[in-house]
Amino acid sequence: MDLIQCLNWRYAAKKYDVEKVVPDDVIERILEATRLAPTSSGLQPYEVIVITNPEIRDAIKSIAWGQPQVTDGSHLLVFAAWDDYTPERINQMFDLTNEVRGFKNEGWEAYRAKLLSSYPNRDAEINFIHASKQAYIGFTAAIIAAAFEQIDATPMEGFDPNALDELLNLRDSGLRSVLMLPLGYRDSTNDWLVNLKKVRRTMADFVRWIK
Amino acid sequence: MDLIQCLNWRYAAKKYDVEKVVPDDVIERILEATRLAPTSSGLQPYEVIVITNPEIRDAIKSIAWGQPQVTDGSHLLVFAAWDDYTPERINQMFDLTNEVRGFKNEGWEAYRAKLLSSYPNRDAEINFIHASKQAYIGFTAAIIAAAFEQIDATPMEGFDPNALDELLNLRDSGLRSVLMLPLGYRDSTNDWLVNLKKVRRTMADFVRWIK
Repeated sequence: MDLIQCLNWRYAAKKYDVEKVVPDDVIERILEATRLAPTSSGLQPYEVIVITNPEIRDAIKSIAWGQPQVTDGSHLLVFAAWDDYTPERINQMFDLTNEVRGFKNEGWEAYRAKLLSSYPNRDAEINFIHASKQAYIGFTAAIIAAAFEQIDATPMEGFDPNALDELLNLRDSGLRSVLMLPLGYRDSTNDWLVNLKKVRRTMADFVRWIK
Repeated sequence: MDLIQCLNWRYAAKKYDVEKVVPDDVIERILEATRLAPTSSGLQPYEVIVITNPEIRDAIKSIAWGQPQVTDGSHLLVFAAWDDYTPERINQMFDLTNEVRGFKNEGWEAYRAKLLSSYPNRDAEINFIHASKQAYIGFTAAIIAAAFEQIDATPMEGFDPNALDELLNLRDSGLRSVLMLPLGYRDSTNDWLVNLKKVRRTMADFVRWIK
């Protein structure tokens, strides 16, 4: 399937086949696509938590309006963004870049200085929102990567992020939960959504041209 | 190329070959992938403006810190999110869904009522931020679709959104600019970034497991 076919194939799975488990190598490729996704200034200001533990997923379900996909998929990805941009976090990424590329660069160091003089001085909430948006990029890469593997997924904003932060002890790592993505295999016979038409605005309503 | 190869091939192009133009059918597929991308409650709360006009792109470059990719790519996509969630906008999407699927559904109508009773009462800025995050999903789909077509792109947050809104008269349509994405072909001989190694945190630093 090409990309368009994959995007037409995918949907927000409502019911998973609880017997089926996504193989490890497939999960690794989905995570690798996420890791490779771009982010603003290359900071990758979020982490992905992969949860298979049944008790923890049960507890998460109770703070996600009982959505069964949380426990019925074989894996649950949680995308958690940095709670703030700190000098340490910014320096870590610039240092890593110098290390991987094997040299220091004046323009790149000037850019580091620019970020260091701006991001850490901003309100933490502004920085968290910005970091969250980068998590949406990785989240989308994971959704598309899953579709390419013919793995179903359920993009989810619907949960209590504060309760999830507490449950997973994220704040102690300077993280705040943003998104969840259960992964698994659709239960085609019992999912009410699987055979309904995908609805999108027409191209004419979605795109305008300035030529 | 598979998805991982495409994500390794892509980078944020710094210099485009100004002689080359992305063909119409390729642009259409990139836009179609964007249109098919998922969004929260399926609201698709953003639009894409495709700009080829040289004078307008020149004006945009001047409010985007002179970044040459704005004018040197063959197309410039602007992602503009809804400035607010209004009852009209929410109803439009639910009505479209009923029309496309050919029936009304009690659960779906209850969900419409839930959104109508919550989103429009929230602060417009909160709604805009939420809509912006959905634009990041479409933006990522466009970046990945471009990579699949071996088309280069430059993900961009760096511009003056208020000035861009004014220049494109977006506020009159209830839109606010969020992201830009020049598309074109890399100038491999003159782009300083093209041969530098891609830098990402290791999988161990990016993903944690709860088994």
